[in-house]
Parts: sequence; structure tokens; C-alpha cells
Amino acid sequence: MKVNKEFNTVAILIIGNEILSGKTQDTNLNFIATRCNDLGYSLKEVRVVRDDKKQIIKSLRELSKMYNNVFTTGGIGPTHDDITAECVAIAFKRKLVLNKKAHKLLIDHYKNLDIELNESRLKMAKIPTKAKLIKNSVSSAPGFKVKNVWVLAGVPKIMQAMFLEDIEPQLNKGKKIFSKSIKILKPEGDIAEFLSTLQSNYKKIDIGSYPFYTPPNIGTTIIFRGYENKSINNAIKLLCKYLTKAKIQFLE
Amino acid sequence: MKVNKEFNTVAILIIGNEILSGKTQDTNLNFIATRCNDLGYSLKEVRVVRDDKKQIIKSLRELSKMYNNVFTTGGIGPTHDDITAECVAIAFKRKLVLNKKAHKLLIDHYKNLDIELNESRLKMAKIPTKAKLIKNSVSSAPGFKVKNVWVLAGVPKIMQAMFLEDIEPQLNKGKKIFSKSIKILKPEGDIAEFLSTLQSNYKKIDIGSYPFYTPPNIGTTIIFRGYENKSINNAIKLLCKYLTKAKIQFLE
Repeated sequence: MKVNKEFNTVAILIIGNEILSGKTQDTNLNFIATRCNDLGYSLKEVRVVRDDKKQIIKSLRELSKMYNNVFTTGGIGPTHDDITAECVAIAFKRKLVLNKKAHKLLIDHYKNLDIELNESRLKMAKIPTKAKLIKNSVSSAPGFKVKNVWVLAGVPKIMQAMFLEDIEPQLNKGKKIFSKSIKILKPEGDIAEFLSTLQSNYKKIDIGSYPFYTPPNIGTTIIFRGYENKSINNAIKLLCKYLTKAKIQFLE
Repeated sequence: MKVNKEFNTVAILIIGNEILSGKTQDTNLNFIATRCNDLGYSLKEVRVVRDDKKQIIKSLRELSKMYNNVFTTGGIGPTHDDITAECVAIAFKRKLVLNKKAHKLLIDHYKNLDIELNESRLKMAKIPTKAKLIKNSVSSAPGFKVKNVWVLAGVPKIMQAMFLEDIEPQLNKGKKIFSKSIKILKPEGDIAEFLSTLQSNYKKIDIGSYPFYTPPNIGTTIIFRGYENKSINNAIKLLCKYLTKAKIQFLE
């Protein structure tokens, strides 16, 4: 799959010290990656950075230039370490202002819960100018989109709701990416040469080889991925023929 | 914690299409992050990139310049999509040659297993010049270090063995990073203002606020992190006093 021919390219920017200190195992990457794959969007790069203004601003600018869509997660809550909105404003030279729609959402939400909409919570309605809000059906405080950057919550449940309910319906479906895999209980060195030749003959698809090593299960998963389903099926046929001849058992 | 005063800074470069397609949930980030934290090393950034030469070379050069240590995972196996060694050689202007020590390791390993050391497997002994090998007690094929870049396997079991058995003993212990946390069953908006003041008064430590939202468990974990244990304890005391006064229950 040639990179430069694609237009539905994606990057993710994960913002949060908790991931980098090892306290939290990130799951947002895998969720967005899986959704992008199903939607025909091609995730090209992920960065994880600290709650550090300079680092966030630099990453926002770089990724926004390099890819068609950027999804950020984390840093849009009410506390002092939530600095994503401020960084997005600086990165794209916007002002950070009290967004009327967002303000209304918070007023209604906290009124219903009989909780005070204090100064800290009000911060969640301070959003860069000319941003489009992203709906949060879980806890109201919205995400937002500036240029090609979609700014999402870090809490998985909220991030997932934003993505599934508001973002996906807005994304044009990309060209479908097909993916199939074959599993063998042999080390990848046994089939490396054949796979290399196969990849050379099928340049328009990606053939990936992924060893697994969890004794007694030792083996290799071979993944075929690309826009051309016919090429994938043909390549798989050739591999299966080879495996049969070499007396290597496989699971499709 | 000021960034520029630190010398034990770390970045991770995760190489592999399988993470970006969502097929595989990465666990290497969390493992290395946790070890770095325990060793007093400060993980500043993580990037995940495709099996793409240009992207890998660019990331290697950038991260190697910005941080004291870079750990890469993935792409050092025997198949056509394993291109990390080649990229490291190009990035740091070294030649990729058959490393005698690595060759010997492979000869012995495959002889013991009565498996053919074929041309594909031999690729795992092709390593940039002037590299230092990293021991692999699981499957022999070594990792290696070039400049400040430690090149590790992607299979978690192998990566972990390399890290624990060979790399950790070589790392000078950094200044111990202390970390303590308090959990409350209240949304973070309830304590955001107090935390902000607390952070302003304790600038040498990091105070992080992490909401969790898995009904019926909704609440906030507050994490105190830094080199000064005394400051952490003092800040925690003040928080607990505040929570008691505000009648918010907490778990230390």
C-alpha cells in the first residue's frame, strides 16, 4: 500500500502523564485504530506526550500538517493539568473563549444532577474560536474540532461515545481495507523466504508476519491487508499451496 | 518536575503495522514505562510508526537527538517486513554487516534445536557496525545498541527478557521518583480548584487528576509524583485535611 496515494490518513495524539508513567494502560489507541481500519482510514502514526504545553503544541502542529485527520485524547477536563484546549488554541492561533453552546450544555447537565457549575467546571466550556463541538452523551462536556484536529476526552467510555456517535457519521467512508490472516504453529523463519517473494509479487497489498511466543503456543500469524481483495485471495491461495507442499499445518 | 533539568530522559519508538491496524493491543509501552518509572528514568514521548523506512529513519533521528535514551520495539525478525536494523544503519550512517558474535549465537541456537539456519534467519545477525549486542535469553537473536538507541524485539516475552536481563543492569539508577495516590468517589470538578492551588504551592512535584468512569464506580484518582518525597507527603496531608473538611471520603 503506497502511502502518498492515500487521502484518508490519520494520526493520534495521546496526551497524559499517566500513560507515560506506566500507571495507566492505554486502550484508546487500539479502539481508534480498529475503528479507522473498519472505516477505511489509514492510521499512520501515534504519539504519546506529557501534559506539557510546548510538547503538545509542537506535536499538534506537526501531525496536523502531515496527516488528513488528527485525533487527540485526554486533557479536556476541569483540572489544572487539563491543558489541551489551551494548547490547541495556541497551536492554531485561535482565542480560547467561553463557547455559548458548550456553556448551555454544562448549565443543563449540572442543573439536572443538582451539582454546582463551579469555576473549574466552567473551564470545560472554554474552547478555541471557530471550533465545531463534538457531542458527549456520557458527561456532557463536549469535545471539539479545529481545522483537521478532533479533540476528544481521555476517559475511554467518553472518548468512545464521542467517536461512535458524533465523529463516525461525519467521516466519509474511505475505500474499504480488506484484511485476512493465516496462522501456523511454526516460527516465521520457516516461511520468511517464501513470504518475501510473495510480497514482491503482490506489491499492492501489505503482507505482515507476526510471531507469537506464549509457550506451548509458538508460531506465526501472517496478515494480508490492502484495498484489493482479489490480490489478497490470490496471495493466500499461493501461500496455502506452499504450506501444504511443505507439510506445514495452517489455520485460515 | 522541570523537563530541562533532567538527564535520564527516555523515548520509545514502537515499530509495527499490527499496532496501527488495531490487530494487536500493544503492551510494550506500559512495560517499559513502568520499568523506567521504577528506575528513576523519565519517559517523555512515545511514537508508534509503520514498517515504513522513511518514517522509521526520521523518528529515530529526531528522538535520538531529543532524549537521552531511545528504546525501539519490533522489526528485528527474519521476515521481509523486519526492517529496523537496516533503518538504524541508515539513520546513523553505519554499514549493515554480518555480526560475528550474533552469527555464532544463531549457529549454536539453531544447531541445538536441529533447525536450519537459512538465509532468512541469518538476516537476524546483520547488524549495524559498532553496535553493542543485547542478550536474548528466549530465542537467541540479539537486540543491539547504536549510539543512545536500544533496539529490542517486538514480541513482549523477548523484549521483556532483553530489558530485565541485559539493559537494566547497564542503566545507572536515576534519582528515585516517588509516586503516591489518593482515590475519591467524587468527580474531579469537586476538587479541581483546590488541586490547582495545591499544584501552585508545590511546583516541584506533579499533581495529576485522573477521572474514572465505569459506573457504578465514578470518581477521581489524584497522583502525586516527583523526586521530593517530603513535598509529596506534605501536599497529601493538605489534600486529606481539605477532603475531611469537605466531607469527601478518600482512600490512600
